[in-house]
Amino acid sequence: MVSFVSDYITGAHPEVLKALISTNSETLSGYGTDYYCDKAKEKIKAACGIDSGDVYFTVGGTQTNQLVISTMLASYEGVVSPSSGHINVHEAGAVEYTGRKVIELTGEKGKLKSDVLESYLSSFFSDDNREHMVRPGMVYISFPTEYGTLYTKKELESLNMICKNYGLKLFIDGARLAYALASPACDISLKDLPMLCDVFYIGGTKAGALCGEAIVFTHGNTPPHFISQTKQHGALLAKGRVLGVQFDALFSDGLYLKIGEHAIGMAEKLKKLFSEKGYAFFLDSPTNQQFIILENKKMKDLSNYCAFDFWEKYDDEHTVVRFATGWSTSDEDIEELKRCL
Amino acid sequence: MVSFVSDYITGAHPEVLKALISTNSETLSGYGTDYYCDKAKEKIKAACGIDSGDVYFTVGGTQTNQLVISTMLASYEGVVSPSSGHINVHEAGAVEYTGRKVIELTGEKGKLKSDVLESYLSSFFSDDNREHMVRPGMVYISFPTEYGTLYTKKELESLNMICKNYGLKLFIDGARLAYALASPACDISLKDLPMLCDVFYIGGTKAGALCGEAIVFTHGNTPPHFISQTKQHGALLAKGRVLGVQFDALFSDGLYLKIGEHAIGMAEKLKKLFSEKGYAFFLDSPTNQQFIILENKKMKDLSNYCAFDFWEKYDDEHTVVRFATGWSTSDEDIEELKRCL
Amino acid sequence: MVSFVSDYITGAHPEVLKALISTNSETLSGYGTDYYCDKAKEKIKAACGIDSGDVYFTVGGTQTNQLVISTMLASYEGVVSPSSGHINVHEAGAVEYTGRKVIELTGEKGKLKSDVLESYLSSFFSDDNREHMVRPGMVYISFPTEYGTLYTKKELESLNMICKNYGLKLFIDGARLAYALASPACDISLKDLPMLCDVFYIGGTKAGALCGEAIVFTHGNTPPHFISQTKQHGALLAKGRVLGVQFDALFSDGLYLKIGEHAIGMAEKLKKLFSEKGYAFFLDSPTNQQFIILENKKMKDLSNYCAFDFWEKYDDEHTVVRFATGWSTSDEDIEELKRCL
Amino acid sequence: MVSFVSDYITGAHPEVLKALISTNSETLSGYGTDYYCDKAKEKIKAACGIDSGDVYFTVGGTQTNQLVISTMLASYEGVVSPSSGHINVHEAGAVEYTGRKVIELTGEKGKLKSDVLESYLSSFFSDDNREHMVRPGMVYISFPTEYGTLYTKKELESLNMICKNYGLKLFIDGARLAYALASPACDISLKDLPMLCDVFYIGGTKAGALCGEAIVFTHGNTPPHFISQTKQHGALLAKGRVLGVQFDALFSDGLYLKIGEHAIGMAEKLKKLFSEKGYAFFLDSPTNQQFIILENKKMKDLSNYCAFDFWEKYDDEHTVVRFATGWSTSDEDIEELKRCL
Repeated sequence: MVSFVSDYITGAHPEVLKALISTNSETLSGYGTDYYCDKAKEKIKAACGIDSGDVYFTVGGTQTNQLVISTMLASYEGVVSPSSGHINVHEAGAVEYTGRKVIELTGEKGKLKSDVLESYLSSFFSDDNREHMVRPGMVYISFPTEYGTLYTKKELESLNMICKNYGLKLFIDGARLAYALASPACDISLKDLPMLCDVFYIGGTKAGALCGEAIVFTHGNTPPHFISQTKQHGALLAKGRVLGVQFDALFSDGLYLKIGEHAIGMAEKLKKLFSEKGYAFFLDSPTNQQFIILENKKMKDLSNYCAFDFWEKYDDEHTVVRFATGWSTSDEDIEELKRCL
Repeated sequence: MVSFVSDYITGAHPEVLKALISTNSETLSGYGTDYYCDKAKEKIKAACGIDSGDVYFTVGGTQTNQLVISTMLASYEGVVSPSSGHINVHEAGAVEYTGRKVIELTGEKGKLKSDVLESYLSSFFSDDNREHMVRPGMVYISFPTEYGTLYTKKELESLNMICKNYGLKLFIDGARLAYALASPACDISLKDLPMLCDVFYIGGTKAGALCGEAIVFTHGNTPPHFISQTKQHGALLAKGRVLGVQFDALFSDGLYLKIGEHAIGMAEKLKKLFSEKGYAFFLDSPTNQQFIILENKKMKDLSNYCAFDFWEKYDDEHTVVRFATGWSTSDEDIEELKRCL
Repeated sequence: MVSFVSDYITGAHPEVLKALISTNSETLSGYGTDYYCDKAKEKIKAACGIDSGDVYFTVGGTQTNQLVISTMLASYEGVVSPSSGHINVHEAGAVEYTGRKVIELTGEKGKLKSDVLESYLSSFFSDDNREHMVRPGMVYISFPTEYGTLYTKKELESLNMICKNYGLKLFIDGARLAYALASPACDISLKDLPMLCDVFYIGGTKAGALCGEAIVFTHGNTPPHFISQTKQHGALLAKGRVLGVQFDALFSDGLYLKIGEHAIGMAEKLKKLFSEKGYAFFLDSPTNQQFIILENKKMKDLSNYCAFDFWEKYDDEHTVVRFATGWSTSDEDIEELKRCL
Repeated sequence: MVSFVSDYITGAHPEVLKALISTNSETLSGYGTDYYCDKAKEKIKAACGIDSGDVYFTVGGTQTNQLVISTMLASYEGVVSPSSGHINVHEAGAVEYTGRKVIELTGEKGKLKSDVLESYLSSFFSDDNREHMVRPGMVYISFPTEYGTLYTKKELESLNMICKNYGLKLFIDGARLAYALASPACDISLKDLPMLCDVFYIGGTKAGALCGEAIVFTHGNTPPHFISQTKQHGALLAKGRVLGVQFDALFSDGLYLKIGEHAIGMAEKLKKLFSEKGYAFFLDSPTNQQFIILENKKMKDLSNYCAFDFWEKYDDEHTVVRFATGWSTSDEDIEELKRCL
C-alpha cells in the first residue's frame, strides 16, 4: 500500500547509504572526533556562510531540542513556544524533564506572531512579581512549522529583533529545514539563517539520513563543555562517524537541497491532485506536508487503499489528516494515490 | 499606612504565638516526630473526619505544591491546571524544576470548568499519539482560587468524578482554605474535603501561622517513604515542633475557622465600603481577597494613603488591584481605608 | 529524662523568642523584603567585615546546601565532598535530586585533606577523557565537621588556594558555625571566613533559632536571579520576617557567639565528666558534639536514664554515640548526666 | 597505523551492513513499530530463552544506562555501583542528571563482591537514620566489567540473591556482552542471564552494529509507558528500523556470538604476543580488552607505531594501557602489532 505517512518511512537516500558503505571498514576515532565529522562540519559551515560558528551532530529531533534548550538556558529560564510547537505537544515532556518550563503562546497556523511575542514579553518585563515567575530565556520556533507553514524573512527578522531587545535567544528547529529551503514560497536561503537566530538545527532524519541532526551555534555561542553536556544527556554517539559520514554526503553536491526539491515537487503534484478532486485543505502549506480535511467515513475508506497520518479532529464529522512526501516519494506513488482518491 | 497587601503581612495569631512561647523550653525530638506534631495531626484528622488519612507538615505553599505534585506523579505524568493556577504562574517553575509539565487549560475566574477538563481528557485518551505526549496524572485546583472564587460542592464532585474516570488524582491547594470554609458562599465543610479529592493542604502561613502548611493524604495514599522524599526536597524541618505546635493551636477551640470568619467579616465590610463609594469590582469574590478596577491615576493617588497589591493590567487606562484581609485586620483598618477612598 | 540528642531539641533562645514576640503585630512586606531582614543582613555583613557580599535567609540546612550547590554549579559540574559530608550521607540525595553528582573523596575525621584534594584534581585535569567525566566545580566542607572537628586557618587557606588554582568554588557549611567560632581550638574569627571561601552559611537552626540559615556570598558572586531560583526550589519563605527578626536578634549584642560559648562551656564539662569516668572518646572534638565509644550493653542501659544519639557501629560489641550540647544545656543537665554515668 | 583503541573503531559487521542495504527502500512505520523490530525482538527472546520478557532498542550505552536506571528506580532510590562502574566514572553524570545518586562501593578488578554488597545493605537497612539517606534500589554491574573481567555464575547468583533479599533490582550492563559469552572463561550462556537479573542490555555498538543496544526486561517488569518515557529522555529513534534491522541481523545465524568469538580469538593471539615479549599485564582479562603496564617512555615510542588507549596511571613511571579487539580485527593487525613490539 502506498504510504504518505511521513518523511521518515524509508531508509537513507542512496547517496547517503553509499557513503556509509564505502567508509565502513575505515578505522576511525570515536565520539565525533573523526575525519568525516570534521569534513561535514566544514561543509555545513560553508553552506551556511559562517566561519566562526560551531556544528555538532546528534541522533534525533527530540534529543536535539532537549539538549539545545537545556544547555542554552539557565535553570530559572523557560522557553517560549507557539502552542502547537513540537516541544510543547509531541515530545512527551522532554524539555520539562530537564527542569525547564515551556511557556506556551497562542500560535497561528503553527507560527508565533511578533505582536503576540512582543505583548507577552513587554508584559512580563514590566511585572513587579516577575521574580516569582519563570523568566523567558529563549524563543523556540520550527521552520517549517508543524503545519508545514513558513515564516517570511521579515517575520524571522522581527522575531529575532524582539528576542535581542529583551535578551532572549532564538532557536529554530529545522527538523524539516530541507523542505523549507526548497519551497518556492521560501524567501531565505541557508546562508541567511545564521543571521536570523542564535542556534538552529539542520534535520537529517526527515531528509534522507538514517538518523542525525546537525546543530549550528551561529556565533561562538556554544554552551561550555558541550561534548560533556551531550554525554550527560546520553546523546553522544560512540560511532560518531555514522553521523559525520551521512552529513558529509548530504552536504556534498547540494544533495540536501536536492532532496528537499524532490519532495517539494512531489508535494505539488499531490496538492494538485487533491485540489482537482475537490478535497478541502485545512490550510495552505507550501512545503512537503499537506493537510486535508476528510469526512470521517471517507477517511476510513481511504485508509484501506493508502496510508496517511491522522492529525487532529476538525469537527464531529470531519478529521484533518496529513500526507507527507520525502526523498523516496515517486511519480508511481502519486499515480497510485490518484487511483485511491 | 494601613495595609491590605496580603494575608501574610503580620506575624502569628496571638493564640498561635502563645503556644510557641509556652512550649519553647520543652525538650522534643526533631523532624516532626514530636508530641505536638502527633497531637496536631490527630486534631486535623478529627476536624476532617478521617481515621485513616495521613497528615504531614511543611513550611510554605510553593514547597508543598512542588512536593505533593512531584511525589504523587510518575515522572512521565503532568499536572493539569487552570491557566491562572499558582503553580502555572507564580511559583517560578517549581513544578517543572522537578521534571513535570504543567498542562494549562483555560480557566474561568480562576476556576477549572468540568466541561473543559472532560473535553481535554477525552481528546487525550483517544489520541493515537498519546505516548508521545505528556500523560495527565493529576488535576490541580485551588480553593479559594487565585481570584478568591469558590467551587461549589457540585463542581468539586464533578471534577473529582472526571478525575476518577480517567485515572487522575485531584489535588486541592488550600493555601487560603480558612477563607473558603468561613465564607457564607461556601457549601462544603472541612469534613467534606477528604471525599472530594485525593490530597489537599490546609494553609497555615496565610491563616495566622508564622509559617506552615498541613498536607492531608485522604485515603492511605501517602507516597512511599514520604519523609525521605520530603528530606530530598530540602523540605523537612529540623525543629518540626515549630509546625506541630502552631497547627495544634490552630486546630484547638476552632481557631482556624475563627480566623477565617474574622477575615471574611472584615472583607465584607471592605466590600461594602468600595461598593458604596461606587468602585467597580473585577469579579464577585466571596472570600478575603477583593479585586477592584482602578483608573491608573486613582491607583497612584490611593497608593499614597494605603497599601494594596497590583494584580493585573485591565486596559491601557485601568488596573486590577487586590485588597486582602486577614487575622489581624481590624475595624480601625477599615475606618482608615474609608478615609482614604 | 535529660537529653543530649542534638542541638535542636529545644525552641528558640529567649532573646530570639522575645524579638519574634515584640515584632509580631507589625505590618511588614513579604518574601524577605522587610525591614528586619535588611537590618539583619547589615549586621551579618558587619560581623563578617564585608561591604560588598550578599546575605540571604533560608529555612533549613539541607535546603540551603541544595540551593547553594545547584545555583552555583553549572549543570555539568559536580561537588567534591569528604565521604562523611552531610550532603553525601544524610540529605537523602537532595543534591543529586537537582542533577549534580557528589564526588566523594576519602576524609579524615570528617575533614577533607589538602593532599587528597590536590591529588584528585591534578589527576582529573590531566585525564584526556575528562569530558566524559563529571567536572568538579565546587568543594563542600563543613565547619565544624560532622565529627565536631575543626580545620585550622592554614588548612582552610590551603583548600581555598587549591580551589582557586583549579577554578573551583569553596563552600563552607556552617550549620554549627557558632560552635566552631566559640571553641578555644578555633584559630579563625567570623571576619576571616569571607576571605577563606566563596560562600558559606551561618546556621541558625542549631544555634538558637526556631529555624533559619544565613547564606553569605562573599564577593559579589550571588547567582543571578537568586530570589527567583530560591522560589523555584520552594525555599522562599512568605513571611520572610520570621528569619529576619531571628537573625537580627542573633547578631545583636554578640548573641550568636554567646550561644556558641555557652554550649562549648557545657561541652567541656561534659567531656571532663566522661573523661573522669574513664569513657573512651571516638576522637578528640573541640566543639559541642562529643563522640563516645560505648559497649553495646552499656549503651542500652544508659539509654534508660539519658538521651543521646546513635552515631555508628564501632565494632560488633561497641557503638559510637553522640552527646551534643546547645543553648539550653544547663549545669543541671550536666549534674543529671553525672548521676547516670 | 594499526589500531586497537577500542571495539567501535570500524563501522558495521558486513552482515549487518548488508541487512541495512537490502531493507533500505522498504516503507516501514516509525518509532520501533516496524516489522524488523518485531522480528529482532522475537529472535532475542528466543536466544534468551524467555517468552514473557520485553525487548526495547536504544541507540547507545550511556543513554541506555540512564534510561533503565531512571525508569526502574523511584525518585528517592539510588543505584549501587562498584567504584569503577561506567555510570560512576565515564558517563559525565548522566545518572545523577536524572536525579539519582550513584552509591559507590569499593570494587575489585571492576567487580562488585558479594560480601561488600551484603555488608553495605545490612548496615543501611539497620540504620535508624535511613530515611535521611539515599535508599538503595538497584545494583548496577557490567559483564564483562570495565577491566574485561567476568563474574562467575555463582557470583552472579549470589549478587542476585542478595538483591532479592533486600528488595533491590539487579541490572547488568552488557555493552560488551558478546565478549563475555564468547570467552572460554565464561560459565554462563545468554539463556542463563534472564534468571540472574531483572534487566540487562545486549550491546550492539561495541559488537558490530553502527549503533544500538537491546534492553531485556526479564520478567514482565517493563516500566510503565516505557515508550513514552524513552521519548521523554530523547532516546526514541524515529527510524527505529535502523535498530531493528541491525539486531535482526545480529541474531540471525548466531552472528552475535560469532562476532564475540572472533574478537576473543584475536584477543588470545594478542595476549600471547604480549606475553611472549615479556610485557606485564595489569590483570588477567579473559575477554577482548587487554590491559598492559608500559614504561612511560615505551608507551610514547609504541604510540608512534600502533594505536591503543590510555587507561590509567600505574605509578610515576608506568601507565596502564588498553588494547581491544573487535569484529574487524584481523590476523594482519596482529602481525602488524608484532612488528611494533
